[in-house]
Amino acid sequence: MPKLQVVLGIDIGGTNTKFGYVDREGRCLAGTSIETDAHLPAEQFFDQLQKNAKLLLESVEEECELSGIGIGAPNANFYKGTIENPPNLDWDYVDVKAAMGKYYGVPVAITNDANAAALGEMLFGAARGMKDFIVITLGTGLGSGIVANGELIYGADGFAGEIGHTIVDPNGRRCGCGKLGCLEAYVSATGICRTVLELSCHSTTPSELRYYSAAELTSEMIYQSALRGDPLAQEAFDFTGRVLGVKLADSVAHLSPEAIIFFGGLAAAGEMLFKPTQQSLEEHLFPIFRNKVKLLPSRLADNPAVLGAGALIWNVLEKKN
Amino acid sequence: MPKLQVVLGIDIGGTNTKFGYVDREGRCLAGTSIETDAHLPAEQFFDQLQKNAKLLLESVEEECELSGIGIGAPNANFYKGTIENPPNLDWDYVDVKAAMGKYYGVPVAITNDANAAALGEMLFGAARGMKDFIVITLGTGLGSGIVANGELIYGADGFAGEIGHTIVDPNGRRCGCGKLGCLEAYVSATGICRTVLELSCHSTTPSELRYYSAAELTSEMIYQSALRGDPLAQEAFDFTGRVLGVKLADSVAHLSPEAIIFFGGLAAAGEMLFKPTQQSLEEHLFPIFRNKVKLLPSRLADNPAVLGAGALIWNVLEKKN
Repeated sequence: MPKLQVVLGIDIGGTNTKFGYVDREGRCLAGTSIETDAHLPAEQFFDQLQKNAKLLLESVEEECELSGIGIGAPNANFYKGTIENPPNLDWDYVDVKAAMGKYYGVPVAITNDANAAALGEMLFGAARGMKDFIVITLGTGLGSGIVANGELIYGADGFAGEIGHTIVDPNGRRCGCGKLGCLEAYVSATGICRTVLELSCHSTTPSELRYYSAAELTSEMIYQSALRGDPLAQEAFDFTGRVLGVKLADSVAHLSPEAIIFFGGLAAAGEMLFKPTQQSLEEHLFPIFRNKVKLLPSRLADNPAVLGAGALIWNVLEKKN
Repeated sequence: MPKLQVVLGIDIGGTNTKFGYVDREGRCLAGTSIETDAHLPAEQFFDQLQKNAKLLLESVEEECELSGIGIGAPNANFYKGTIENPPNLDWDYVDVKAAMGKYYGVPVAITNDANAAALGEMLFGAARGMKDFIVITLGTGLGSGIVANGELIYGADGFAGEIGHTIVDPNGRRCGCGKLGCLEAYVSATGICRTVLELSCHSTTPSELRYYSAAELTSEMIYQSALRGDPLAQEAFDFTGRVLGVKLADSVAHLSPEAIIFFGGLAAAGEMLFKPTQQSLEEHLFPIFRNKVKLLPSRLADNPAVLGAGALIWNVLEKKN
């Protein structure tokens, strides 16, 4: 019997690194995680990673053959195979392809987590069969992956798809990137906390959230408050959706996607966020694009980051054939 | 001797329709124009067009063989081969591929003028050898054509690339499309006239432009005033460039292009417009994209709209082979 072809999908995060073996149908046969100890030199991290990946492969019952390795990581450059000045990691510049090449003789590809998520949706999730779509990842920040003509857009330098750093207001909130008014400073887990503070300042709406400090507030608390009917919490979600809708209208004007797919923690807020987003999007769309673009939740239920990283390398392998 | 392979490039404008024969090297062997009499039924227009195109072909000295027909037109849909509700034309819906198919047995392709311009730059102009770039056409309005991974982006519905209708300010100027605050209402020949009116209202800067009515003002007058050192005219160009720079930073965040190429009437203002644009662009770029993106003038000097339409069909023909 022929061996089952699998790829190793790896998602390197600031705290943990998840990895697992993914077949062409999008099944994650086995998955686990290790701590991303970014204080250690990168070589030690990759050595530990491959040892654990080897153990994990032995735990899989089916006989597998490794076809490639896909990696999602912050500030990853697809063209160069590197990670460059990643936020939340101490590594300056890591040649990841070379680091993995010391242990493996199979193709390795790397990109950022939002691009990996987009390929995950294309191969295994909500974007199956689509050639033009955008994935928005809503977590601590706002990431994005753009597919047009059936291909992920990496741009001239490998870093395309930073919709989180488009500008809501050139004189607006300071973003973590140093600029003023980036979308991510409004629409993200941290952005909605800032919005609650702004609303607490500008309005007189009563709210249970007024009893928490800026340091204490979390997007989950705001979500739970909104569910309980807290008007200020609900206003914060409305505002977040309205801002997101305006900027997504700009994305549609560029790309005219079939769908925009939402992925990640804050996306779990569901209708609370998507209803005002959809309304604002339609209102701000160029007429020719109205009532065409679908807003969809991710359909990568199980281990989505690992599936995305796996999809990245499956996509590369298929283009080679 | 083998015949020279040529295509017929046609640019359908609100007033005139330009057309000519273009070889694979981007030479326009012969070109002319007819009036776009859009009060006539579309069938009559296309009949007149093909008669004139036939006469023009006879005027070419070299022996030519027609390989295809490319057409740039407002609201043209590449996928369907149609023109739909074009502004400035009385036709509701024209199946252009079918209309041309009555006279010709060669492949026909149609897209809007800005997309045609982008393909013109890629095959014959400033974007030769580039895989990721944006063309901005600055005329009465602001059009755009986007190329990523070496392919023009048409999007899910064939209408992608409407950067002129991204939003500068959701409560801003009313645009011709009905929305508020579109880029085109600020950055275009008509946009800069509106800016002069706004500056005349908000500032006390003296200016020769204060002696002209809203109906009299033209972008050319503003340009000539700015050249003569008129401070309000210069401020209008600065403002226009600053607004354009902010929005192009958003385009770069999506696409990370190698270059942004400027095409059309207002682009002739040169440094007067590009200096403030470049400065504002760099200021508003996500740090990773700074000092990478080239701003370039079009290099389709001779009959650019016809070369663009010709490039459209050359591009289609080459993909077929």
